[in-house]
Amino acid sequence: MSRYKLTIEYDGTPFCGWQMQKGLPSVQQSIMEAVERFSGSSVLLKGAGRTDAGVHARGQVAHFNLPGSWLCNTVRDAINYHLKPSPISILRAETVDETFDARFSAIGRHYFYRIIFRRSPLALDYGRAWQVCVPLDVEAMRVAAGLLIGRHDFTTFRSVSCQSRSPVKTLEKLEIHHLGDEFIFCVSARSFLHKQVRSMVGMIKLVGERKRSIADVKVALEACDRQLCGSVAPACGLYLMRVDYPGLLPDAPDDASSSLK
Amino acid sequence: MSRYKLTIEYDGTPFCGWQMQKGLPSVQQSIMEAVERFSGSSVLLKGAGRTDAGVHARGQVAHFNLPGSWLCNTVRDAINYHLKPSPISILRAETVDETFDARFSAIGRHYFYRIIFRRSPLALDYGRAWQVCVPLDVEAMRVAAGLLIGRHDFTTFRSVSCQSRSPVKTLEKLEIHHLGDEFIFCVSARSFLHKQVRSMVGMIKLVGERKRSIADVKVALEACDRQLCGSVAPACGLYLMRVDYPGLLPDAPDDASSSLK
Repeated sequence: MSRYKLTIEYDGTPFCGWQMQKGLPSVQQSIMEAVERFSGSSVLLKGAGRTDAGVHARGQVAHFNLPGSWLCNTVRDAINYHLKPSPISILRAETVDETFDARFSAIGRHYFYRIIFRRSPLALDYGRAWQVCVPLDVEAMRVAAGLLIGRHDFTTFRSVSCQSRSPVKTLEKLEIHHLGDEFIFCVSARSFLHKQVRSMVGMIKLVGERKRSIADVKVALEACDRQLCGSVAPACGLYLMRVDYPGLLPDAPDDASSSLK
Repeated sequence: MSRYKLTIEYDGTPFCGWQMQKGLPSVQQSIMEAVERFSGSSVLLKGAGRTDAGVHARGQVAHFNLPGSWLCNTVRDAINYHLKPSPISILRAETVDETFDARFSAIGRHYFYRIIFRRSPLALDYGRAWQVCVPLDVEAMRVAAGLLIGRHDFTTFRSVSCQSRSPVKTLEKLEIHHLGDEFIFCVSARSFLHKQVRSMVGMIKLVGERKRSIADVKVALEACDRQLCGSVAPACGLYLMRVDYPGLLPDAPDDASSSLK
């Protein structure tokens, strides 16, 4: 029996999300079925984070145990073969010791959120970014983002269905890069609450549109009141880029200009 | 009667190409039908270049004449409304004088070609780049690219079905940018032969794989023999980025890092 760590890319559009749901196509179940098809073993695959329906990944991580001993590249290629034509790709398979847990061993999670400002519909980026038609004030958005960095009770920016024990999290990074008509939010923390990134981006975008002030963001954060979260950004703009583990070097670039391709 | 210039983005995947073909979905016919639906007028739309099946555009240009006088933004929004859900978007509509011709007035055409080097399938970039599984020597590819710049008889890099009067063209730019696992070829000229960009990229990629030498490229170019074109790169990696006209400022960035998003 060996434990394998998978690094996974997917287009979230056709899935109900990472997590299995009866009768719906999920990323988790698609990969579990591919493992069973090549190995004959029924396995349980555990992910680092449960991405919602429509959320994409360039570097989701998951682990599972498999009887026998398979070469890592065989595991990667065999799963990829059986995943066709699903838009899921195993980028890497590695053996890890039995204490490794994709979710509980993680010490850093990195997301990108893409907003494209333009009037005309997105042809090439449809389903891959949030289109907004009102010009955004990037400097105001950066000030608002700065208020959220650090250790806070993020109840305002947490889904009502969030199952995390505590609403207190430490937001390590929330940077906004502006390239042409696109805004890329780079967001990092050890862990996040359910819908935290999309809730923060939704509120910051309202500041960019001048529908909320910077003071409103401060009031909303301090109120710890979900009612004050102005809006939740749609799933299609969100990408899980990378998950970090102790003692392992980052395996994907953390730079907006080179990572979205 | 007014003449309108359209700047157009599309995902080429579902189309037989720019040009109308009986019984097949084309970009040209989709837009002509959208114009007729909003205006009641049957028009002929002429494009700057005929992109092949599967080739994408971030800045194709076309023109047409329309009876009556419509505001430019009305034309843009009405066509976009009637194009839904086709992955075609009119980025801009402008009035131009009756001497403007999208094809014959053009003085510059700019393409990108994307190659992604990796073993695992493309999940997010499937149909949007050429995946290669052999490592590419970018320095060798740049030397090979340099041999093609300038005024040459490009018969070797021309489709047998090309209808251009002369095979002599001046290639102004062929730069290769390397970011992470991606190679972006930025290619510019006043005009191109049919399949010229894909033929040049196909040959240069063979040099990158060390299946052809730099000397082979020189021999192939000078031979003016289509048989010596090693391979033609697939359509899915090609993007028509911009078309230039006299007296008009470029309207899209010409920089690999900010344009592909």
